[in-house]
Amino acid sequence: MSSAMRYLSKSMNASILVSLKNGVFVRGILRSYDNHLNLILDNAEEIYTAPDGETKQSSIGKRVLIRGDNVIVISTPKIEELEE
Amino acid sequence: MSSAMRYLSKSMNASILVSLKNGVFVRGILRSYDNHLNLILDNAEEIYTAPDGETKQSSIGKRVLIRGDNVIVISTPKIEELEE
Amino acid sequence: MSSAMRYLSKSMNASILVSLKNGVFVRGILRSYDNHLNLILDNAEEIYTAPDGETKQSSIGKRVLIRGDNVIVISTPKIEELEE
Amino acid sequence: MSSAMRYLSKSMNASILVSLKNGVFVRGILRSYDNHLNLILDNAEEIYTAPDGETKQSSIGKRVLIRGDNVIVISTPKIEELEE
Amino acid sequence: MSSAMRYLSKSMNASILVSLKNGVFVRGILRSYDNHLNLILDNAEEIYTAPDGETKQSSIGKRVLIRGDNVIVISTPKIEELEE
Amino acid sequence: MSSAMRYLSKSMNASILVSLKNGVFVRGILRSYDNHLNLILDNAEEIYTAPDGETKQSSIGKRVLIRGDNVIVISTPKIEELEE
Amino acid sequence: MSSAMRYLSKSMNASILVSLKNGVFVRGILRSYDNHLNLILDNAEEIYTAPDGETKQSSIGKRVLIRGDNVIVISTPKIEELEE
Repeated sequence: MSSAMRYLSKSMNASILVSLKNGVFVRGILRSYDNHLNLILDNAEEIYTAPDGETKQSSIGKRVLIRGDNVIVISTPKIEELEE
Repeated sequence: MSSAMRYLSKSMNASILVSLKNGVFVRGILRSYDNHLNLILDNAEEIYTAPDGETKQSSIGKRVLIRGDNVIVISTPKIEELEE
Repeated sequence: MSSAMRYLSKSMNASILVSLKNGVFVRGILRSYDNHLNLILDNAEEIYTAPDGETKQSSIGKRVLIRGDNVIVISTPKIEELEE
Repeated sequence: MSSAMRYLSKSMNASILVSLKNGVFVRGILRSYDNHLNLILDNAEEIYTAPDGETKQSSIGKRVLIRGDNVIVISTPKIEELEE
Repeated sequence: MSSAMRYLSKSMNASILVSLKNGVFVRGILRSYDNHLNLILDNAEEIYTAPDGETKQSSIGKRVLIRGDNVIVISTPKIEELEE
Repeated sequence: MSSAMRYLSKSMNASILVSLKNGVFVRGILRSYDNHLNLILDNAEEIYTAPDGETKQSSIGKRVLIRGDNVIVISTPKIEELEE
Repeated sequence: MSSAMRYLSKSMNASILVSLKNGVFVRGILRSYDNHLNLILDNAEEIYTAPDGETKQSSIGKRVLIRGDNVIVISTPKIEELEE
């Protein structure tokens, strides 16, 4: 199992933040993935900075598919404490 | 069956919204797909923001083929309630 | 037969509109294709918006080859009624 | 034999016009090709629009190799009448 | 074992700096990698130059996955002395 | 032997001009190549247009390697007369 | 052994200059490479032109890994005299 797959396996059902090559950030609950790094996220939101400098989010779908070749970085803010 | 294929299988005959790498959003009824993420959509519309800030749509074809390597994100606003 | 191939098979000898990654739209009669989505079009025209806002076309060849990796979306305005 | 190969086979020793992904147009006599769409052209000219709006050409070599992955569209203005 | 894999093997559990194709620099402790150059980093920080010219960092996650195809250069400032 | 390989084989030890995807032109004596279109050139010079409109060259190395995927067009100004 | 591999083999432990697709130039001692053109360089420096027009360098690491797909041109200023 590759490093990427193991990382995603441990992140299942956790909230992840994905930065995409088009400059967009998407946050959602990881429900599924495959070895192309295609991701299925629930309660997905786009995260952006409003003109007043505040960070905002807007829903992009209850369940979305992100094509894996768009991914730059994935972070899983809430699961590190589960790692040994 | 990969995560992407399963997602598209569940979205058959539903309305999906596709964001493309050229910045365009396309909405239509998913009629078919293959493992390159090529998509066949019916009643396809391009979604865009008009200069007055309103979201508008304009038809791009009763049946269109989207080449899969252009896809960034797919969402299926109306089928989440079918998921277990 | 993949979804893309089936779509193109049904579009043979019909007029199709192809949007390309360089922002150009090409319209022509589909005469042939292969599994790279390479397309042979007859009476091909580039479609563009003139400075006065009008949509215009200019011929780019009686028979042209479009390399498949440039394709974003293909639509076939006149064949939907043939679908079951 | 794929559609692209058959198209190029019929265009051998004819003048073809090639639009490239960097925005350049090249015209020349097709002398050879392979299945990557690499092209060997004789008497190759770059076609461009001068600042005064006129279309001009300038020689880029008696025999040139174009790497196939740069190709967007190929047209063969003078051979359509040979097609059945 | 390829040069890239050997380099990463020697950098395990060390702090590495990764420059990405989108212009971002990320620094973190290398915890895992695979042969796509996918990287798992702990205590990852984005490094950037503030408007006043100072170099700053901001945390992007306790454990992140970087998709390998985004990598330009990796440096491991603190392990050179371990090399023979 | 593909068209590209035959072209390069005939260009061995001749001066070639290579246009690259980053807009740079490189000229040099072709000493070696492989089937990725990687090129080894001797006495390589970058060709550029100076602000005064004159074409100039500056040496970039007595022997350089060009990674093949950067190549757009290769021309070999001095060998056409050797072709049958 | 391909042309690229032979070139790198002859450049081992020599200073090489690498131009990258993001416009950066890196110079360092070649310590290792593989068939993806991944490069391990020691005493790596970024070479750039300062606002006053002078060429400057700044260290980017005692040992760095450059992912091969970023490479445009490699030159080895000091080893040509070793070639037969």
